[in-house]
Amino acid sequence: MSTKPSKISVFKRRESEARSYCRGFDTVFTSARGSEMTDASGRSYVDFLAGCSSLNYGHNDPDMKAALIDHLQVDGVAHGLDMHTDAKAAFLDAFCTNILAPRGMDHKVMFTGPTGANAVEAAMKIARKATGRSNIVAFTNGFHGVTQGALAATGNGYHRGGAGTTLHGVTRMPFDGYMGDGFDTADLLEAMLEDNSSGLDMPAAILLETVQGEGGLNAARPEWLRRVAELARSNGILLIVDDIQAGCGRTGSFFSFDGMEFTPDIVTMAKSISGFGLPMGLVLVRPEHDVMGPAEHNGTFRGNTHAFVTARVAIEKFWSDETFRADIDRRAALVADGLEIIAGMIPGARLKGRGMMRGVDVGSGMLAGEICARAFQKGLIVETSGPNDEVVKILAPLTTPDATLRKGLNILVDAARDVIGQQSIAAE
Amino acid sequence: MSTKPSKISVFKRRESEARSYCRGFDTVFTSARGSEMTDASGRSYVDFLAGCSSLNYGHNDPDMKAALIDHLQVDGVAHGLDMHTDAKAAFLDAFCTNILAPRGMDHKVMFTGPTGANAVEAAMKIARKATGRSNIVAFTNGFHGVTQGALAATGNGYHRGGAGTTLHGVTRMPFDGYMGDGFDTADLLEAMLEDNSSGLDMPAAILLETVQGEGGLNAARPEWLRRVAELARSNGILLIVDDIQAGCGRTGSFFSFDGMEFTPDIVTMAKSISGFGLPMGLVLVRPEHDVMGPAEHNGTFRGNTHAFVTARVAIEKFWSDETFRADIDRRAALVADGLEIIAGMIPGARLKGRGMMRGVDVGSGMLAGEICARAFQKGLIVETSGPNDEVVKILAPLTTPDATLRKGLNILVDAARDVIGQQSIAAE
Amino acid sequence: MSTKPSKISVFKRRESEARSYCRGFDTVFTSARGSEMTDASGRSYVDFLAGCSSLNYGHNDPDMKAALIDHLQVDGVAHGLDMHTDAKAAFLDAFCTNILAPRGMDHKVMFTGPTGANAVEAAMKIARKATGRSNIVAFTNGFHGVTQGALAATGNGYHRGGAGTTLHGVTRMPFDGYMGDGFDTADLLEAMLEDNSSGLDMPAAILLETVQGEGGLNAARPEWLRRVAELARSNGILLIVDDIQAGCGRTGSFFSFDGMEFTPDIVTMAKSISGFGLPMGLVLVRPEHDVMGPAEHNGTFRGNTHAFVTARVAIEKFWSDETFRADIDRRAALVADGLEIIAGMIPGARLKGRGMMRGVDVGSGMLAGEICARAFQKGLIVETSGPNDEVVKILAPLTTPDATLRKGLNILVDAARDVIGQQSIAAE
Amino acid sequence: MSTKPSKISVFKRRESEARSYCRGFDTVFTSARGSEMTDASGRSYVDFLAGCSSLNYGHNDPDMKAALIDHLQVDGVAHGLDMHTDAKAAFLDAFCTNILAPRGMDHKVMFTGPTGANAVEAAMKIARKATGRSNIVAFTNGFHGVTQGALAATGNGYHRGGAGTTLHGVTRMPFDGYMGDGFDTADLLEAMLEDNSSGLDMPAAILLETVQGEGGLNAARPEWLRRVAELARSNGILLIVDDIQAGCGRTGSFFSFDGMEFTPDIVTMAKSISGFGLPMGLVLVRPEHDVMGPAEHNGTFRGNTHAFVTARVAIEKFWSDETFRADIDRRAALVADGLEIIAGMIPGARLKGRGMMRGVDVGSGMLAGEICARAFQKGLIVETSGPNDEVVKILAPLTTPDATLRKGLNILVDAARDVIGQQSIAAE
Repeated sequence: MSTKPSKISVFKRRESEARSYCRGFDTVFTSARGSEMTDASGRSYVDFLAGCSSLNYGHNDPDMKAALIDHLQVDGVAHGLDMHTDAKAAFLDAFCTNILAPRGMDHKVMFTGPTGANAVEAAMKIARKATGRSNIVAFTNGFHGVTQGALAATGNGYHRGGAGTTLHGVTRMPFDGYMGDGFDTADLLEAMLEDNSSGLDMPAAILLETVQGEGGLNAARPEWLRRVAELARSNGILLIVDDIQAGCGRTGSFFSFDGMEFTPDIVTMAKSISGFGLPMGLVLVRPEHDVMGPAEHNGTFRGNTHAFVTARVAIEKFWSDETFRADIDRRAALVADGLEIIAGMIPGARLKGRGMMRGVDVGSGMLAGEICARAFQKGLIVETSGPNDEVVKILAPLTTPDATLRKGLNILVDAARDVIGQQSIAAE
Repeated sequence: MSTKPSKISVFKRRESEARSYCRGFDTVFTSARGSEMTDASGRSYVDFLAGCSSLNYGHNDPDMKAALIDHLQVDGVAHGLDMHTDAKAAFLDAFCTNILAPRGMDHKVMFTGPTGANAVEAAMKIARKATGRSNIVAFTNGFHGVTQGALAATGNGYHRGGAGTTLHGVTRMPFDGYMGDGFDTADLLEAMLEDNSSGLDMPAAILLETVQGEGGLNAARPEWLRRVAELARSNGILLIVDDIQAGCGRTGSFFSFDGMEFTPDIVTMAKSISGFGLPMGLVLVRPEHDVMGPAEHNGTFRGNTHAFVTARVAIEKFWSDETFRADIDRRAALVADGLEIIAGMIPGARLKGRGMMRGVDVGSGMLAGEICARAFQKGLIVETSGPNDEVVKILAPLTTPDATLRKGLNILVDAARDVIGQQSIAAE
Repeated sequence: MSTKPSKISVFKRRESEARSYCRGFDTVFTSARGSEMTDASGRSYVDFLAGCSSLNYGHNDPDMKAALIDHLQVDGVAHGLDMHTDAKAAFLDAFCTNILAPRGMDHKVMFTGPTGANAVEAAMKIARKATGRSNIVAFTNGFHGVTQGALAATGNGYHRGGAGTTLHGVTRMPFDGYMGDGFDTADLLEAMLEDNSSGLDMPAAILLETVQGEGGLNAARPEWLRRVAELARSNGILLIVDDIQAGCGRTGSFFSFDGMEFTPDIVTMAKSISGFGLPMGLVLVRPEHDVMGPAEHNGTFRGNTHAFVTARVAIEKFWSDETFRADIDRRAALVADGLEIIAGMIPGARLKGRGMMRGVDVGSGMLAGEICARAFQKGLIVETSGPNDEVVKILAPLTTPDATLRKGLNILVDAARDVIGQQSIAAE
Repeated sequence: MSTKPSKISVFKRRESEARSYCRGFDTVFTSARGSEMTDASGRSYVDFLAGCSSLNYGHNDPDMKAALIDHLQVDGVAHGLDMHTDAKAAFLDAFCTNILAPRGMDHKVMFTGPTGANAVEAAMKIARKATGRSNIVAFTNGFHGVTQGALAATGNGYHRGGAGTTLHGVTRMPFDGYMGDGFDTADLLEAMLEDNSSGLDMPAAILLETVQGEGGLNAARPEWLRRVAELARSNGILLIVDDIQAGCGRTGSFFSFDGMEFTPDIVTMAKSISGFGLPMGLVLVRPEHDVMGPAEHNGTFRGNTHAFVTARVAIEKFWSDETFRADIDRRAALVADGLEIIAGMIPGARLKGRGMMRGVDVGSGMLAGEICARAFQKGLIVETSGPNDEVVKILAPLTTPDATLRKGLNILVDAARDVIGQQSIAAE
C-alpha cells in the first residue's frame, strides 16, 4: 500500500512555499502514538523530533487522550476566551501546586495567545511597560519567534530577512561560549552596562534561552547564567528566560534553570506545556511586574480549553514526584552515548546540549543534512539545528521507552556510518 | 448550588491581571453546546459573544465533535508541525473545492501560527518582502492584533500603549465614513498616493477589515472598498483583507468581500476557521506573491491537526451549498429587528455593522457597559465594542436557532429597558 | 571674457553628484551685492532665489559687511563653541529687545548647530523630552530638512528615499487646503486626536510651516493655524512653527505668524537669521519647555560668532521700527502683479504664497522648469518649488529696490512668454 | 576692569539651559588670536580647547583673516547654496592637489550642511543607499553628533537620552581595547559577521573614529583598524572614518589614518576643515559610492563661501609640504611630557590619545573637573572627555608656539598639583 498521490499533490498545488518540514519528511502521516509516527502507507517511524520539543510526553498520551475525549463527550468548553472555566482552574491549581509552589515562585500566570512567539511578545511588552525602558538584550544564535517583536530578538539571518523591514529595539550580545573558552562574554555585558557611554541603552530586559535550541544546542554554564541574572538584578533589568523549547523537562528538570540558584523575573512557556502538542502559551511573571491591564495584551485563543485539559494531566502525571526526572536522566545518558559514537566517527565533531536536548555538531550543514535524510529513509525522524544546520539534534519524547530510544539511536548511528562511508569511498 | 469559591479564587490569586472577559462574566463555565454556555452552578446563558466570532458554528457542533473524537480514538496526529498529515490534506481539499475554486481564487494557503495576530504578521511580512517596500497603510479603528507588527496596524490606543515602545511601519488613514457622509476618505488616500511629496511612503500593502469588529462595527461601503482595491492595484500595492473576525460567514457570506467585485491579494483568517474554536490561522496569498521561503515564517503550532479535522467538517457541512447563507440572512434580519427596538429607546442611537455582525451605538460606553452587565444578570453573554466601548455588539453563533436568537434578543431588550428606565428614574 | 573652463571642470571632476543648483545655473559666480550676482565672465544676474530665503536682506549688506570686517580686524572671536562672547550677547540683546519683547514672548533662545535641519532636530527632541511622548504630527508637502529626524517629518518622497532606511516617529496629516475648499483638514486632525482608537498616538508636537516653501508655497489660512494651535494647546501638544524659510520678514512680518493671535511653543529659525547668509540656527522655546540639559543637544558650530555679528546688525537695521514691513508690503504687491501677468498667460495657472514668498503654479514641472531656464538665459536666477516642481517661485531679497524687482519680473514674464510662445508654435 | 554684568546676565536670562561650556568658562570672551583668548576684562587665557579641535590653526590666523577680509571687501559671494563659486573652485583645487592626489584618493567631495553631524548623517545615508542595507556598526564610546541618525551611532547615554524616543539602525560593537589587552574586539566583530545567526544584520557601513575624541581619547591600534577595514571590504561593507575631530592634522597627519595602509570608503570632515572655525562640513566618498542624486541630501548652508576662502588658505599654508607635520610631532612630544608629569602625581593615571590629541585619565570625573576648573582660574582653557569625564584632554591649536604650549602645560601641571595637594590635605 502506498501513499495516495492525491494527498501529497494537494500540498504541492495549494500549500504555500513556506511549508518546510514536509519537504524533508516527504510522506503523509496519519497516526502517532508515544514515540512513533505512522504514515499513510502504514510505515512506522521513530520520532526524534517530537514536534520540536512540543511532544515531550510523546504522541497521544493515553491519559491525556482519555481526559480530552471525556471533556469532549460532556460538551466541555472548547473555546473560552479568557473566561473562567473549570478546566482552566484545574490546570492553574495543578501548575501552582506541583510546579510553582515547590520552587517558591509566586509568579502570576498570564495566558497569552497560544504560540511561543506570542508569549515572547507579551514578555517583551511586560518588561518594557514595567521598567519604562525600551531596549532589550538578546543573544547571538537566540531564537524567540518570527513575529515582529520576537523576531527582533531572534538571531537567525534567514528569519530576520523575512521581516521585509528593519527590526528594532534589541541589542545583541554574545552568548556564553561565543568567543571560546578564553573569554567570558558576561564580562562584555557587564562592561557595557556599567559604561554610560557604551551605547547600550539600559535595557528593560535580558532575554535568553539557557540552551539555545534552534541556535545549535548551545548550553550556557550555570555560573554564566547566575552572573547574567545578577547583572540584571543589580541594574533593574528584568531577566526573561525563554523556556519554550528547553522547559517542560527537556533538559532534565521542569524548568531548564532549576537548581541554578536564580529565579527569572519572567518565564515564557509554550510547546510542551499542553502536554499533548496542542497550542498553548503562557508567561510567568513576578507579581510586582504583572503590569498588563485587562486585555491590554489580548488574543482570541488564549483560552484553548482542550489544552488546559491535557496540560493538567501532564503536570499531575509527570511532575508530582521525582520519578520522571530520574527517567529523563537515564535516557539522556543513552542519548549521549549514542551521539558519542557518531562523534567518534567524524574528526572535530563535538557533543552539544544537555539533558534530552542534545546533538552532535558534525561541522557541516551538508553532512548533518545527509545524515538526517538517510536516517529518515531508515525510519527515523530527526532534524538539524545551528546557524549552518551543522548540528544533528535529538529531541526525542522524554517518555521514549529505552528500547525505542536505542532503536532510534542505532538508526542514527547507521545513517551516519552510511553517509560517512560514502564520503570515504568518494574521497578515495 | 453555587460556584465553588475555590475555583474562582485560583484565578484571583494566580492569574495575571491581564485577564479580562472573566471580569465581566464572573462565573466559572463548565460546558457549552450550540449557542448556550453553562456554568458550574448549572445556570445556562445564551451566548451572543461566540468567542468573539470564533464560534460561528456554535459550541461543540456534534459533527465536528464526533470527527474529533474519532480522530483521537485512532491516535490521529495531534501535532504535526508543518508535516503532511491526512487531516491537513482533507482540509485543504475541502477548502479549495468549496471555498477557493468557486470564487476563481488560485491563492496559496499558508498555515501560520494559530492566532489571528500571527496571520496578520505573516501577511505584513509577505507584502513587504514581495514588494520590497516597508510601509503599510492601515485605518482608524482597525484592529489586527497585539504582537508588535500587528499592533503597529491596530488603532486602539490602549492596546498600542501596551507596547511599551514606539510602533513603526504603518501609515494611518481614515476609514470609510470616518468624516461623515460629506467626505469620501478614499479621496484623501488617492491624493496622498498620487502626491510624491505627501509624505506617504508608497506602501507595500493596504490592510483593512471590511467591517471593523473591535473598532465599533464600522462597515465599509462596497464602492469604497472597490476604490481602495483599485488604488492598490494601480500602485502595485497588495490589498490585505483581514477577515479574521468578519470572515467565515459572519457578514452573511464566507468571505466578507464576496460579491463585491474585487479579490484581495492576501486574506488573513483565524477565529472561526477551525469551526470548533480551536486555534488555527492561515493566510491566503496569490501565487505570485507567495514569497516566504521554507520556514521563513515558521511556528510550532502551524500544524494543529485537531483544528484541521474540525475545520474540514465545518467547510463541508456549512459551505457546500447555499442553505447556510440563507439561514444567516434570516437570522441577521432578526438581530437587526431586535437592535432597532433598543435604538428606538435611546435618542441618537444608531445601528452598526452588517450580516450577523451587528450592534447598536448607544452613544456612551458607560451605558453600553451597563446594558451588557444587566444582560448577563439575565442570562445573556454579550459585549461592547468601539473606541469608547459605546456599541452593544451581537456576535451570536450563525447557527443559533431562531428561538434562541429571539430569547437572547429579548433579554437584551429587557436589559436595555431596565438600564434606561433606571436612568430615567435617576434623572427625575 | 568667458568663464575659465578649469573652474567649472573641477566641480565636474571632483564634486559629488549631490550638487544641484549649479546644474541649473551653470556658471561660476564671483561676487554679489544686494539683489544681483555676478559671474566670472562679468555678467550680472538679478537674484530671485536669495539663497532660498537665506539672503532676505540681499547679498553683502554694507552695514553687516562693515561690522564683520571690523570684527575681523580686531580679532573678534570667530568660533566660540557655546561660550559667552560679546557678539553673542549683543545679538541676544538686540533679538530680545526688538523681536521677542514687543511680542510678549518670553521664549528662551537655544543656539543649535547652524543649519535649519539641526534646529528642527533640536525642536523635535525638546518636544519629545518635554512631553514624554514620541510621535510628532507633520503635514503633507512639509519640508523640514534631510537629517534623519527632520527627514521623517519632510514629505518629499525624493528626499525621503535618500534615507536608505525606514523613517519613524511622524504621523502625516493633510495640510490646510489639501483636499480643496470643501474639506477643512483640521476636522480630520481633531477627529483623530479625540478618538482614542484612531491610531494617532498622542503627539509630542505638531510641526508645521505657515507657508510651505518647498512644498509649493501653500499658505495656511490664519483660522486653520489658530485651530491647530488650539488643538495643540488643549491636548498638551507643543506647537512647533518651522519659520526657517517663511520667517525673518519673508511673509511680510518678522515671524510668519505675527498678528495671527497664537504663539507657538517652539519656533525654529535659520536661513536669514544671520542676515548675511552665514550659517546660523536657533530654536525659540517657552521657558517651561526648555528642557535640554547642558550640551544635551550640542554641536561644534553653535557659536558661529561671525553670524552673531551680522545677525545683530540685521535685527537693529531692519526690525527696530515699521519701515521695513511697509517696504515688504509694497514689493510683495509688485511681485503679485508680475505673477498675475504670467498666470494670465497659462490656463489653470494660479498664484501661490503670501508676502514676498510667492509663486505661480503653472500646472507642470516641465513648463515651470523651462520658464526658469529661459529666465536664467535672460539674466534672472529663479527656481521652482512644489511636489512636481510646478511652481515658479520668487524669493527675491526683501530689500530689492523696486526698479530691480521690476527688472527681474519683466525678465520672468518675458521668459514665460517665450516658453509659452514656443509651446503654441509647437502645438500648431 | 571687570566683565560687564549686563553681558553675562542676558545669557542667564534668555539663553537656553542647553548652553554648556560657558558654565565652566564663566566669562565673556571678546577677542582671540593664535592660541590665546581674551575676555571682556582684558584677561588673556591660553586655549587648550581650540573649539574642540575646530581651531587647529589657532584663532584668527592672519593669512586666512586677510583672505576673508579681501573676499568681503570685493563683495565676494558669502552664501552660494551649492552653486559654483570661484572660492569653492579654489578650495576644491587646493584640496585635491594637496590632500587627495598625493594619497591616490579619487574620492568625490560632497559639501554637506556645515556641521559634523550633518556630514555623518550624509555618510550614513550614502552607505545605506549604496549598499541597499540598513544596519550600521558603530562602537562603544563613539561620538558622531546628536541629530537623530548620527545620535543612533553615538554611544554617550546622556546625549542618547536627549532623543526622547528610541534610536534605531545601529549595532554597537566594542572598540579596540574595550575589554583590555587580552581580547581583540575585532575577533567578535569577525565572528558575528561570519555567523549568519549572530543577529548582526549585515551592515551597510562600519563607522568609527580612529581616536575617540569625546569617548576618552581611545586610540585604536593601526592593526585593529586594518583588520576592521579588511572585514568591511570582504563583506561589501563601506568603511566610514569619522575624521571630524581627529582629522586636519590633529593626530599628526592630515587624516588620522594616514600611513595605516587602508583607505576608507567614506570620510567625514568638519571642525577644522575651514581652518578658521567657520561652519563647514564635507564627505569624501569613493566615486563608485557617490550615489546621492542632485539635492537628495541638501542643505541651505552647504555653500558657506567664507569657509571655502579660509579653508583654501589653510590647505595651501599648512599642507603643501611636510613642515607642519614636523611641527606637530615636536609639539605632541611636549604635550606628552607635560601629561606624564601629571600622570606621575596620580596613582593609576594613564596617558591617552596620540599626536596633539592627548590627555590623561585621572580615574575620576570629579578630579578631572577640578583640575580643569583650577586651570581656568590660572588662565588656561582646557576640558575633560570620556564616559565619566575622567580624562583631562588637551586639544591645543597645532600651531601653538612652543613657549605658549609650555606655559599652558605648566598651568595645567600647577592646577593638578593644587588640586591633588588639597586632596592630600583633606585626606590627612
